[in-house]
Amino acid sequence: MALRARVNGEEIGSIPVDDRGLAYGDGLFETIAVYQGRPLLLAAHLDRLKSGLDALQFFDPPGSDELRSEIELVSADVARGVIKLILTRGDGLRGYDPTSASAVRTIVILNPWPEYTTSRKDGMRVGLCRLVLSSQHVLARIKHLNRLEHVVARAEWNEDWQEALLKDQHDRVVSGTQSNFFFTNGEALFTPPIVDCGVAGVMRETVIRCAQQLGFACEEKPLKDSELTEVEQAFMTNSLLGIGPVAELCGRAVKIGPMIRQLQAHLYENELVVPD
Amino acid sequence: MALRARVNGEEIGSIPVDDRGLAYGDGLFETIAVYQGRPLLLAAHLDRLKSGLDALQFFDPPGSDELRSEIELVSADVARGVIKLILTRGDGLRGYDPTSASAVRTIVILNPWPEYTTSRKDGMRVGLCRLVLSSQHVLARIKHLNRLEHVVARAEWNEDWQEALLKDQHDRVVSGTQSNFFFTNGEALFTPPIVDCGVAGVMRETVIRCAQQLGFACEEKPLKDSELTEVEQAFMTNSLLGIGPVAELCGRAVKIGPMIRQLQAHLYENELVVPD
Repeated sequence: MALRARVNGEEIGSIPVDDRGLAYGDGLFETIAVYQGRPLLLAAHLDRLKSGLDALQFFDPPGSDELRSEIELVSADVARGVIKLILTRGDGLRGYDPTSASAVRTIVILNPWPEYTTSRKDGMRVGLCRLVLSSQHVLARIKHLNRLEHVVARAEWNEDWQEALLKDQHDRVVSGTQSNFFFTNGEALFTPPIVDCGVAGVMRETVIRCAQQLGFACEEKPLKDSELTEVEQAFMTNSLLGIGPVAELCGRAVKIGPMIRQLQAHLYENELVVPD
Repeated sequence: MALRARVNGEEIGSIPVDDRGLAYGDGLFETIAVYQGRPLLLAAHLDRLKSGLDALQFFDPPGSDELRSEIELVSADVARGVIKLILTRGDGLRGYDPTSASAVRTIVILNPWPEYTTSRKDGMRVGLCRLVLSSQHVLARIKHLNRLEHVVARAEWNEDWQEALLKDQHDRVVSGTQSNFFFTNGEALFTPPIVDCGVAGVMRETVIRCAQQLGFACEEKPLKDSELTEVEQAFMTNSLLGIGPVAELCGRAVKIGPMIRQLQAHLYENELVVPD
């Protein structure tokens, strides 16, 4: 159960069964780390949310200031936790037609902090899912509520995996099931482009920027699943994990080098992730 | 607002914000027509739901008898209405992992009957959406809660359309936005196969069976969007509409012949649709 929930600014833990978020997944979400009362990377989360609201053409959504206030209110006094922000198009009245929706519903949920200590220090065992992500340019990059592919992929994981990669219809690696993917071949750092499927993670953008600040070249580059054997080092990113180094990639041990540790340290120093 | 709602057998109109149906669209639904206290084609709806529960590997879902009782309870005394049955995987505890879900949640919603009179008699103006349905074999055919593509498609409709066709990545017509599609070229009746995208509608299956009973050949056959100009007659099907003849297809008038009227009459006579 959630530690706390607010719906449209009231302390309520439920939504009407007519909500289009339930009916069609007609909404967006953000997963925000909270540390010492402060929601981390909040501006970046609200920016990504805005992209989603624009893409789905939400009518009259709450502004960033209003959302920021709600999130800060729930974050106050939280030592470490996770806020899930959900915006749905509101109650449905006549089928799929988005113009028939009532008004955007804002849901703020506070959940306990999950434990990431081991995987951030020792590295993660990362597999590869059989599920192939479908291509839908209109819905790619944004963090919408249609996540059945990820649920199906998660159900595939071996018991000893801490994450698993997803590929697209062209056998290209897109991301992890719940994170983005970075890899090195030789000197440079790369991450797969997010174009027709996958989520453009807030931590992915943050790490690209941090790498540049530290003087590491970091570029988008496609990676075929057959090329995974050539990957020298790799890590996963999301807003809770920060950077999770890969210790084992599809059954093969990979090293965790100084660049990854330097990037991790940079995130901690700049208070962009929740420390252990 | 719903006329009535029951959640897990109680008269409740809301669900917890933790529900995975909201979080990920991790669930299934059925839209069932109710006439004179009787849910129409209930066995077929429960069969299709069962396919979805199997495909998504729901753990310990309610049995058909239990669901049937709930639906019949809500249908009693309803002259004409629509039941929306939603099954979600329950409350989420740890991200996408479906094994972390609490227990399947059953939601039964009664909505008022929509008006279909005009389009069933005079025919529908049917357009073609620009949105291309993505291909995902795992999620095709079943009626899951990830319906953002349909919401985006619905937002595209011209004001004078009553339905619009959706195509797949290979420029093949799949279905309508909220219905299945049947067409004739010469003597025989065809409907596009539902393989990698689209929903295998309960009324689609029913109409295929009825056509065979009436001695009309009816087969699955792919149709390119470029071949729409060669379609002689066409109709749309869903559980509320029954058969909605197409009067105008992508701006071109098409006739509504005796076979379509005979099929419509057969549905009414066998009490498979709600009459006007």
